[in-house]
Amino acid sequence: MKGGAICNSPAMSDAASSAGPLSGLRVLEIGHFVAAPFCGRLLADLGADVIKIEPPGKGDPVRGWGERLNGESLWWSVHGRNKRCVTLDLKHARAKDIVLDLARACDAVIENFRPGQLARLGFDDDTLRSANPDLMVVHISGFGQDGPYRDRAAFGVIGEAMGGIRHLTAYPPGMTDLPPVRTGVSLGDSVTALYAAFGLMAALWRKARFGGSGRSVDAALTESVFSLLEGCLTEYGALGTVRQPTGSTLPTNAPSNAYRSRDGAWLLIAANSDPLFRKLCELMGAPALASEARFRDNGARCAHARELDGLIGDWVATLDVGEAEAKLAVADIPASRVYTVKDAAEDRQFAARDFVRRVEDPLLGPVLHPGIVPRFDGPGGAGAIRWPGPAVGAHNDDIYGGLLGLAAGEIQTLREEKAI
Amino acid sequence: MKGGAICNSPAMSDAASSAGPLSGLRVLEIGHFVAAPFCGRLLADLGADVIKIEPPGKGDPVRGWGERLNGESLWWSVHGRNKRCVTLDLKHARAKDIVLDLARACDAVIENFRPGQLARLGFDDDTLRSANPDLMVVHISGFGQDGPYRDRAAFGVIGEAMGGIRHLTAYPPGMTDLPPVRTGVSLGDSVTALYAAFGLMAALWRKARFGGSGRSVDAALTESVFSLLEGCLTEYGALGTVRQPTGSTLPTNAPSNAYRSRDGAWLLIAANSDPLFRKLCELMGAPALASEARFRDNGARCAHARELDGLIGDWVATLDVGEAEAKLAVADIPASRVYTVKDAAEDRQFAARDFVRRVEDPLLGPVLHPGIVPRFDGPGGAGAIRWPGPAVGAHNDDIYGGLLGLAAGEIQTLREEKAI
Repeated sequence: MKGGAICNSPAMSDAASSAGPLSGLRVLEIGHFVAAPFCGRLLADLGADVIKIEPPGKGDPVRGWGERLNGESLWWSVHGRNKRCVTLDLKHARAKDIVLDLARACDAVIENFRPGQLARLGFDDDTLRSANPDLMVVHISGFGQDGPYRDRAAFGVIGEAMGGIRHLTAYPPGMTDLPPVRTGVSLGDSVTALYAAFGLMAALWRKARFGGSGRSVDAALTESVFSLLEGCLTEYGALGTVRQPTGSTLPTNAPSNAYRSRDGAWLLIAANSDPLFRKLCELMGAPALASEARFRDNGARCAHARELDGLIGDWVATLDVGEAEAKLAVADIPASRVYTVKDAAEDRQFAARDFVRRVEDPLLGPVLHPGIVPRFDGPGGAGAIRWPGPAVGAHNDDIYGGLLGLAAGEIQTLREEKAI
Repeated sequence: MKGGAICNSPAMSDAASSAGPLSGLRVLEIGHFVAAPFCGRLLADLGADVIKIEPPGKGDPVRGWGERLNGESLWWSVHGRNKRCVTLDLKHARAKDIVLDLARACDAVIENFRPGQLARLGFDDDTLRSANPDLMVVHISGFGQDGPYRDRAAFGVIGEAMGGIRHLTAYPPGMTDLPPVRTGVSLGDSVTALYAAFGLMAALWRKARFGGSGRSVDAALTESVFSLLEGCLTEYGALGTVRQPTGSTLPTNAPSNAYRSRDGAWLLIAANSDPLFRKLCELMGAPALASEARFRDNGARCAHARELDGLIGDWVATLDVGEAEAKLAVADIPASRVYTVKDAAEDRQFAARDFVRRVEDPLLGPVLHPGIVPRFDGPGGAGAIRWPGPAVGAHNDDIYGGLLGLAAGEIQTLREEKAI
């Protein structure tokens, strides 16, 4: 499969007319699972030419993850989109030459092997940069490229727990015996990928603007997650305060909580300012509440949050969720049901901004893809879904023949030797 | 307060020797609360000169959020670090000239007002770029710069719910009547800020590399969150599958769960591969379990996850958490207690990588700060904590006098008129 005209729905017309801000950038992805491939997708969505190396045969394990259609992973359609996929057995005798040739043709490498593993295969940063002194090398790992935990296996759930977020996705101590929940997605991997993509672009910008040579970037999952913890570390250091989970509430602002509707949905209402709270009280038919001492300002409302949530919950319980949403929207009070992916897929804001896109996938048929974040206007074009996740080795001829200039016979030999 | 030698702990020595990859970049932050200021911090941490405009008086509301010491917000020390803070009443008659002069001196503006609000104040993209055609303008908002929800108030909890993550931070249907939890941090804001910083650097890289003029970037909280949902949208579109929350488990891999230790801590164990599971069975003194039909491979283990979690839970319940962690570490099985911020602050990996830093804050005294993500080596230097969040208007003389060249008398007049 080649990129090009395969995304033929109207929503995809931007693919032809726009190259994206990162067109002209070429990146080699030696990654698997979630973090490095998500970083590669971020770059490819904005127009970079991302060449992904996978082991011959089954390729990236994500191709076997999640729900499938015709035996093909639906997640892969999104996770692998806009990339050119080649196969290569990194332990094969020819692999070193090929990887170094690819490194010469690229601006950057992104990888998420366990620290040191790529070096043991012969691809340490110095060797890669001996082939291409301008090469940026981005390492993504659980704990970072040094330190006592460097060699530990990096599982997302462990990194999220050590980064401190898992302690907070829970109910207050004593409220339930249930353990803290996962966020339900590969949060730590995705956030680390975002940091890695940002760091890579910072290094590339510096080089484009001021010159200089290649350098290395080290993004750790634990540190990426830890960096999201607002003032928690500073508060702990200065006061000994250990932030505790607060369940569905915002501890410092009230009312902001989830309330059960008559038809059983969870409805979030964030009326946590004095004007919003006054509007909510009017909507509930109890305008006098807003001036009662126990609810008069945010401090009072936080101190009496349980009573207040009880009153709001009683009101929400009299309404179906759609009815409640409509009333709250008219009153301009921030509110929404908790969206499932179905709700998101059918939402008119996502539709208006073309964020739920129909893509023709040669492996799957027509499928839905999320759009591209962020959006760009002006010269240089926006990002685009140029093609969905390709088959294993789909671009072997394209890359090994077209880019590296190997003869058809050489490529055939590599195939026969199971090198690709 | 000026930047410079105020961070005098040994850990801060990189501040003097390193300019950071983004030194030479100047960014104007017209933002408040979390998302745009977090984006500004990401840029400033890597060396950008970020000039933050705040309203005269109390400044950014975050200065009043969270735990305080001496009346000063501890979160602010981190959230405002490395920035130069000026005050300006954007409605004052002199504001337009000042903002446009600042725009001329900057490479980019980042803002998170409600869409259209900055334009109503006279600072639409065209006006800003009439002052500086090269200016990148980054808009961060709840729902994006267009579409039917554009004008709605953008609260993080609402955006997270509509982006689909809140539905997943919960227990499986029927397991409890408790509502889905918040992630406990400003997750949507932070993720959107990361996308915005990445997008800005992509636009700046393109311009540095290929020329061109300024452009606009539009990062929406709802879309940023939605983009984290792996294959959920594609699975829904193709199969009608609506992903449901799975509490503390990984639904597709077993065993991976949280187990309660004898001393009451939650211990995560991720032994979700055949070799890891065999090692875990040996450690539990039940090696035969690994070859039983019900646990023989991942599929079987997922089908019997509840039984399996019961057996592992029984074993963990016989050990204190530190004891269990030590045994699991020796066996090289990914595991960790659920870290509080205290655990993270005392962890030896974060310490070894200098990720828990001591910073001297003139407003607070010595405080702890998280380090900088990602790390860089090579030419151009790493990021640094150059100074903690400054006082309101701390850099008024520096910016209005030094950068814009206003005379001391003019600055004094602005002060008297409460313009700054």
